[in-house]
Amino acid sequence: MSQPDFSANLKPHPQANGAATLAKERQQSSFDTNAISKHLFGDAYLERQARILKIVTAEKVFSKTNQANLSRPDRYKLGLARGKRLRQLMNEHNWNDDDFLMAEWLVDDVLPHHLNISLFKSAILEQCNEEQRAYWYPKLQAWEIIGAYAQTELGHGSNVRGLEATATWDHQTKEFVLHSPTLTASKWWNGTLGRTATHCVFVAQLRIPKRAGSEEFHSYGPHPFIMRVRDERTHKPMEGIIVGDIGPKYGYAPMDNAYMLLNQYRVPHDALLSRYATVNRETGEYVKPKNTGAMYGQLTRGRSQIVMNARLVLARAVTVAVRYLSIRRQFRDQDASDQFALEEQVLNYSTVQIRVLPLLASAFALHYSGAAMQELYERTRGADAQKESALNGLQELHFTSAGLKSLTTEMAADGIETCRRAMGGHGFGGGTGLIQLNNDYLSKPTVEGDNWMITQQVARYLLKKVKDLSTASRSTTASRLDASLARFREHSKSPPQLSGLSDARSILEAFEWRTAFLAFEAYESREVKKLPWNSLLVEFRNLSRAHTQAMLVVYFYEGLRGLDALPSSTKAVLWDLFRLFSLSTIEKDAWQFQRSGAVATKTLDQLPKEVLALMQRIRPHAVRVVDSFALPDYLLNSDLGRSDGKVYESLFHRAHVENPLNRITFNPRYWEDELVMGSKDGGQILSKL
Amino acid sequence: MSQPDFSANLKPHPQANGAATLAKERQQSSFDTNAISKHLFGDAYLERQARILKIVTAEKVFSKTNQANLSRPDRYKLGLARGKRLRQLMNEHNWNDDDFLMAEWLVDDVLPHHLNISLFKSAILEQCNEEQRAYWYPKLQAWEIIGAYAQTELGHGSNVRGLEATATWDHQTKEFVLHSPTLTASKWWNGTLGRTATHCVFVAQLRIPKRAGSEEFHSYGPHPFIMRVRDERTHKPMEGIIVGDIGPKYGYAPMDNAYMLLNQYRVPHDALLSRYATVNRETGEYVKPKNTGAMYGQLTRGRSQIVMNARLVLARAVTVAVRYLSIRRQFRDQDASDQFALEEQVLNYSTVQIRVLPLLASAFALHYSGAAMQELYERTRGADAQKESALNGLQELHFTSAGLKSLTTEMAADGIETCRRAMGGHGFGGGTGLIQLNNDYLSKPTVEGDNWMITQQVARYLLKKVKDLSTASRSTTASRLDASLARFREHSKSPPQLSGLSDARSILEAFEWRTAFLAFEAYESREVKKLPWNSLLVEFRNLSRAHTQAMLVVYFYEGLRGLDALPSSTKAVLWDLFRLFSLSTIEKDAWQFQRSGAVATKTLDQLPKEVLALMQRIRPHAVRVVDSFALPDYLLNSDLGRSDGKVYESLFHRAHVENPLNRITFNPRYWEDELVMGSKDGGQILSKL
Repeated sequence: MSQPDFSANLKPHPQANGAATLAKERQQSSFDTNAISKHLFGDAYLERQARILKIVTAEKVFSKTNQANLSRPDRYKLGLARGKRLRQLMNEHNWNDDDFLMAEWLVDDVLPHHLNISLFKSAILEQCNEEQRAYWYPKLQAWEIIGAYAQTELGHGSNVRGLEATATWDHQTKEFVLHSPTLTASKWWNGTLGRTATHCVFVAQLRIPKRAGSEEFHSYGPHPFIMRVRDERTHKPMEGIIVGDIGPKYGYAPMDNAYMLLNQYRVPHDALLSRYATVNRETGEYVKPKNTGAMYGQLTRGRSQIVMNARLVLARAVTVAVRYLSIRRQFRDQDASDQFALEEQVLNYSTVQIRVLPLLASAFALHYSGAAMQELYERTRGADAQKESALNGLQELHFTSAGLKSLTTEMAADGIETCRRAMGGHGFGGGTGLIQLNNDYLSKPTVEGDNWMITQQVARYLLKKVKDLSTASRSTTASRLDASLARFREHSKSPPQLSGLSDARSILEAFEWRTAFLAFEAYESREVKKLPWNSLLVEFRNLSRAHTQAMLVVYFYEGLRGLDALPSSTKAVLWDLFRLFSLSTIEKDAWQFQRSGAVATKTLDQLPKEVLALMQRIRPHAVRVVDSFALPDYLLNSDLGRSDGKVYESLFHRAHVENPLNRITFNPRYWEDELVMGSKDGGQILSKL
Repeated sequence: MSQPDFSANLKPHPQANGAATLAKERQQSSFDTNAISKHLFGDAYLERQARILKIVTAEKVFSKTNQANLSRPDRYKLGLARGKRLRQLMNEHNWNDDDFLMAEWLVDDVLPHHLNISLFKSAILEQCNEEQRAYWYPKLQAWEIIGAYAQTELGHGSNVRGLEATATWDHQTKEFVLHSPTLTASKWWNGTLGRTATHCVFVAQLRIPKRAGSEEFHSYGPHPFIMRVRDERTHKPMEGIIVGDIGPKYGYAPMDNAYMLLNQYRVPHDALLSRYATVNRETGEYVKPKNTGAMYGQLTRGRSQIVMNARLVLARAVTVAVRYLSIRRQFRDQDASDQFALEEQVLNYSTVQIRVLPLLASAFALHYSGAAMQELYERTRGADAQKESALNGLQELHFTSAGLKSLTTEMAADGIETCRRAMGGHGFGGGTGLIQLNNDYLSKPTVEGDNWMITQQVARYLLKKVKDLSTASRSTTASRLDASLARFREHSKSPPQLSGLSDARSILEAFEWRTAFLAFEAYESREVKKLPWNSLLVEFRNLSRAHTQAMLVVYFYEGLRGLDALPSSTKAVLWDLFRLFSLSTIEKDAWQFQRSGAVATKTLDQLPKEVLALMQRIRPHAVRVVDSFALPDYLLNSDLGRSDGKVYESLFHRAHVENPLNRITFNPRYWEDELVMGSKDGGQILSKL
C-alpha cells in the first residue's frame, strides 16, 4: 500500500475494551478456576497439554492462519504434511500415543493418517489372533504401513448385515477372493483409504462353497480381512482395485474418505482376522466365533470417549460465546434511566443467557457422565470386590450407551450452532473459530450409529427390563434403573408430582419417574397392544431420550456429591449449574413431565422464573467457569473467544493483515473479461472448472 | 489409469434402482404436480425459469462441478467472472431485472456485484431526491459503477443508533467530512465493498457544528452519504480510505464482505441522500425528514421476500430428502415375516417421516404466508375499495412481520439441517447439494435483525394491542388479531379446549387463543406487575413465536380455502399438509397449548397418533408433492435429490470421474517430506501458510 496505514493508530471505542472487560469479569467472581481445571482434567492431562502445545506452536506447518483460504486438494496436502511432521515429532520427543493424540487435538485438523491410529489399530488389536497381531501391530505403530477400515459401502451403512462385498473361500488355492459384485458394493466413506492408506481391513460377507468349485455357498455374514491396497514402491493401487477419494463433504477437508471396488482380489488364508472366527485351512470348515461377551467394555469405553469429546466440543463453543458476549455491548437497557450509560453487555440479556448458560451447564453434565462411564469400565478391568455389581452396571451401560451417543452428540452439534447464533452477526464470521469445528462435528449425529436409529436399542432394553420386572424376583444387584422401574410399578397411582425445586434428589426422582412412565407406556403399546414396531419408533426415541437425560442428571448429581476439597463458593456455582441443567431440561419437555405426573403443574409454571434466577446467579461467574475448561488460545483459534479479550483488534488484524485476497486488485468491469486488474488474464478461472 | 476400469460395467444392486423407484412413487399418486407448480409459481415464473436455465447451463463458467474444490480466493474470482458474464448475457438477451435475479438464483452462487443490484439499488431508489436518483440510477443499472451499502460496523450491527462513523458538515467548503474515529467504527460485513465496489452508500452520524469552526455539534443520528471508494482507472482505494475483505466466513465464499475505515474523507454537499432530510447548503441548517409512514409497504415487501425465499430453501432441502429417502433402503421391517423382502424404504420409517414431512408441510405454510403478504402490499398500492382496511392490515403486518422474519428463517435454517441428518451417512457428503446452501443460509437468522432480538417488536405491538383493547371501542376495521384478543378477554374463563382434530377453523382458534393467552400474560407481567423488560425477553420471544405460528396457520388455511380449480384428490393432500403442519406445531409446544386451555389434555394425548396417521396418508404422495416445487436439477446440484433418481451412479461419478484429488498420487511415508509421489517437492505446502 502506498498510503500510510492510519489504522495502526486506531483503538477500539473505550466501551469495547475487551481486555479490561474480561479482567473485571474475572475479578468479580471467586470461582476457583485452577481447582476446577485440575478437578476436571487432572494434572497429567494439563501437563501434557502444556508440553505438547509448546512444541506444535513452534512450527509453521501447524499455523492455522491461512487454513480456511486453501483449496480442498491443498487442505489434503497440508494434512498429509502435518501428519508426517507429527509422527516425526513423536520420534524426536519420544511421545506415547496419548501425547500424539493430544497434538492432533490441539492442531484441530484431522490427519489423513488418522484411521491408522484409530479404527485400523483397534481392529488389529481386537480382531487379530496372536500371531496376526504380532505381525501387524509393530508395522502400524511404526507407520511402516498406513491402515484404513473398509466396512461401510455406498449402499449400506447402518445395516452392516446388508453389506454386499463378498469374501469367497477358494479351497484349491487356499485363498479368499474379495469382490465387489455391484456399484453399491463399493466401499464408501472409509477414511484414510482414498489416497493415503497402504493397507486396510476389508469387511465382506464370508462365503464357503458347499462343495469344491460349487456356486452354492454357506454364508457366514460379515468378516474382517486385512489386505494391501497400494503398491509399496509406487503407492499406486494394486491390480484389481479401484480406489479414490469421494470428494468434498461438510467437514474433514484433510481426510480422504474413500470409494473402493475390488475385482476378484485374492488374499491368503491368514488375511482373515481370526480372533473370534476362522476357516480351517485344510478342511475349509468354518470355525465358530467364541463368546463375544468381553466386548461390553470396548463399546462402553468407545462411547465414553464420544461423551468426553462432546463435552470438550460444547466447552469450546461455550468458551467462545461467553467471552465474546461479555465483551460485546449492544443497546442500552430499555428500563435504564441513565442515557449515557454504557451499552449493555450482551450476555446480560435473558434471551442470550437462556441459550448459552444451559449449554455451559450441559458441558459439566457430559463431563461427569463420561467420567463415570470410564470409571465403570476401569473398575471391571481390575480385581475389585464390587466387580460383579460393576459388571452388571457395565452390561446395562452397554445397552443404554446408544442413548448417550445419540443425545450427547446431538447436544454438542446443536450447541455449537446455538452459541454461534447467540453471537449475532460476528457469529457468522471466521473470527468465531467455530466454522471448521461445526462442519466437522456435524458428522457425529449420523456416524457410528445414526442418532435416531440407535435409540431403538435403548428402548428394546427398557422393554425387556419392564418385562423382567413382571417375571423376576427382586435382585440384590438391582441397578438404579431396576429400582426406579419397580418403584413406578408399585406406586403408579401416586406419582411424585415434584413440588419444590431445591431438593436435588427429588429432581432425580422426577426424571426417573418420567422414564418409567414412558417405559411402561411403550411396553403397553408393544407387548400388550402388539402395535407395529415401525409405528412406535418415535415413542421409542422419546423413551431413549428421557432415560438418557435421567442418566445425565444422575451422573451429574453423583459427580458433585463426591466433591469435598473445593471451596464452598465454587461448589455452590457447580450446584447451580446442576440445577440449571436439570430444570431447563424439564422446561423443554414440560409436557412429558406433566403428563407422567413427575412434576406438578404449578411447579412447571414456576420453572421459567426459577431458570431465570439461576442464570442470574451463574452469570457473574461465567467467564471464570469457561476459563476452567483450560482451552488454549491456539486450539480455539478464535478472535471472539481469545482469553485476553482483544476481540476487535484481532478481528481487524485477521482481515487487514492476514487475508490474502486483499493482496490482489481486481477488475470489476463487466465489459472486460480480465479478472485481476492489469493482468490481461482473460478470465483464466475457467481452466479450474 | 493403466488398468482397465472395471467400474464401468457395474450397476447398483437391483433394490437400489433409483429410477425405477421414483417412477413407481410417481405412479402411485394422483397428486397433480403440474397444476400445483402453476398454482404455486404461476406461468410467467415457470417460463422464465425454463428460459434462463437453458442459457446458463450452456456456459462452462456456470458449471458447479468443481466449485467445492476451489480456494477462497478462487471462489471470489469465479464469482467475479460469473457476475460479469451474467451482465453480458443480460445485454445479449435483453433481460430485465427479474430475469437477471432468476439467473443468479439458478447459478446459486452469490455474485460479488450483488449489493449493486440489492441494497445499493434500494438506497438509491428510496433515499435519493429526484435529481440524485436521475444521476445515479442509470449508472448503477448500467454497472458503470458498482455500489455497496456501508452501514454495519465492527462494533455495532443491530443498534444502528450506536454507529460511530461521523459525517461532519464543513460550512466553509460546503463539504461533509466522513470519518472513522476508532477501530470499532470500521465498517464491517458490507458486501461487495471489500474488493469489488467503486462506490458505496456510507451511513454515518450527521453532525453540524453549533458555530462555524466549533468543536461542539448538533447530532442528528445516522444518515446516508454516497461516496466513491476506488479510483475509476486503477480500482485502488482513494486516499484516506482503508478497505478490504474480512476473510472467510461460514458461507458466501464469492462475496467480498468488507472492512473500511475513512480518515477525514471529504464528500460534496449533494453526497447526502436527501429524499427525507437534508442540510441547507447556504445556511448549514438541518432540514427535517418528512413523514416516513410510506415505508410500511417497503418493509413488508422485503419481509415477504424473505418468507418466499425461506419457502424455496425449505422446498429444496425437502426435495432432496424426499427423493433420496424414497430410494434409499436400509434394514427390513422388524415385524416383516418375509426374510427375503427388499429392505425398507427409509422414508417409510416413522422416525424419518416425523422429521421430513412436517417440513414439507411447512414449505406450503410459508408459501401461502409470503403470498398473502405480497398481495396485501400490492393491494395498498392500487386504488381499491378495500384500501383502508388493507392499509390497516399492512400496518399490522409491518409491526408483526419481524416475527415472520424471525420464525421463518429459523424454520428454513433448521430445516436444512434436519433434512440433512435424516439422510444419515450420505447426508454428510457433497452429494446432498446442500452444503453451500446450508452454509450460506446460516447467515439469515442473524442478519437484517437478529432473530431473537427482533421478537421484542412483535411483543411490543401485542402489548399495545392489549392495552388499546381496554381503552378503545370496537373498531369496524378490526383485524383477526383484534378480534381474537377481544374474544379472549370476553371468554377467558371458558377456553376453547379443542377436542376434535378435524375442524380446521377450530384449530385456527386454538392457535389464536394461545397467542391471546400469552399476550395477556405478558401484559400482566409488564404493565401491571411492572417487571423489568430484560426479565421478560424470553416470554416476549415465546409470545412472538406463538403469534407468528398462528399467522402461518391462518394464512395456510386462507390460501387453501381459495382453491377451487384443483382436482379434489390433490386438494385433499394439501389439506392433510395443512393439518400436519398445524398439529405437529401444536405437538411441539404442547405444554403452552395445554396451559392456556387452547387444547384439551386428552386431545393432546391423541396428537402423536393423529400426526402419524396424517404422515401415512401423505407419504405416498411425497415424491409428487416435491416434484411440484419444480426445482431444476441444475439448481439442486444434488446426487441424492436428482429428479431421475440415479443416486448411486451419480455419487460414484462425482467421486471417480470428477474429483481432482484422484489425479494425484501422494507419498504417505512420514520419513520423507515429499508430498506428491516422485515430485521431490520437499513438502512445498508450507509456502501457502
